[in-house]
Amino acid sequence: MSFRLDIALIHYPVVNKKQEIVGSAVTNLDIHDIARAGRTFGVRTYWVVTPYEQQQELTASIADHWTKGYGGTVNPDRADALSIIQIRTSIEQVLADMSEQDRQPPLVVATSASRLCKKMSYAALQNELQQGQPILLLLGTAWGLAPQVIELADVALPPIMGSMGAGTYNHLSVRSAASICLDRLCGHRED
Amino acid sequence: MSFRLDIALIHYPVVNKKQEIVGSAVTNLDIHDIARAGRTFGVRTYWVVTPYEQQQELTASIADHWTKGYGGTVNPDRADALSIIQIRTSIEQVLADMSEQDRQPPLVVATSASRLCKKMSYAALQNELQQGQPILLLLGTAWGLAPQVIELADVALPPIMGSMGAGTYNHLSVRSAASICLDRLCGHRED
Repeated sequence: MSFRLDIALIHYPVVNKKQEIVGSAVTNLDIHDIARAGRTFGVRTYWVVTPYEQQQELTASIADHWTKGYGGTVNPDRADALSIIQIRTSIEQVLADMSEQDRQPPLVVATSASRLCKKMSYAALQNELQQGQPILLLLGTAWGLAPQVIELADVALPPIMGSMGAGTYNHLSVRSAASICLDRLCGHRED
Repeated sequence: MSFRLDIALIHYPVVNKKQEIVGSAVTNLDIHDIARAGRTFGVRTYWVVTPYEQQQELTASIADHWTKGYGGTVNPDRADALSIIQIRTSIEQVLADMSEQDRQPPLVVATSASRLCKKMSYAALQNELQQGQPILLLLGTAWGLAPQVIELADVALPPIMGSMGAGTYNHLSVRSAASICLDRLCGHRED
């Protein structure tokens, strides 16, 4: 069966280095890399969430170039990846759209480089996916999801940590973190 | 114990879309994202391999900005990540330097989005790492490692595939592929 797994890249509200609430700018590589990983691992929709109209227009023009414009004709694989993108103003809007589509609200899952309460393991979340539960995975830009977003989530995945020998450094880009999350949840491992 | 795992990002020789041998340009995000993932997962050295002098200078100036320059003072975590970078002209030069450092040649591991001969599973490679074997993981830019690089490798990892439901799409960015590879080899999973 195909999973009902969506991801949302949040540009507001997120925190900066000083843990202040800010809005971040959409970047071209976040759009491409996360769409390609999403498409590889069977993500249904990759929601790009920003309240800023100009940022929404920029995102749409990038996605359109690769799905409807010249980009897609020279690189159909990229068109395929970027076709899973939808742009929304807020997480609430994403939740409303998913709830309508699935006739039930998704399980909302926060990700963070820190340990959070209401932890759910990768194995438990994988089980939810396999049971057909619609899931929305929230990914934060800048220094991560704002407290009110984490508050809104039903559960949180544990942080991605390296090997014991590597210590506690875990400052991954959101592109790397998204890729690893998706591989842990949906990757098929060949022996 | 700490692993003896190095990674090399190859900018020449790689192939383009038509499978012709080309050299690619170094990109800022490849430097940052892969260094951050490398540092997180305990990579010893991240070799940036390019024969082009101007590209070597560009790479050095980015790395220096974050390790010795202003960047490192405002973001010490980034300095920490980029400190694992070394620039070399060729894979042969990397192999010579690693062999001297470890007093034995590394096991050279190719990565590819296609199935290659001389396959080694992630579990088997993890076992080699844990036994103390020095390992060099080769990552290709553009459309991937050139045939002569794959020929030079001792073994190859299987391609990263999504879930069954997602079909056979696996066009990941090298940043995503590197992150997933390292997590599969060295990631610590919390229950």
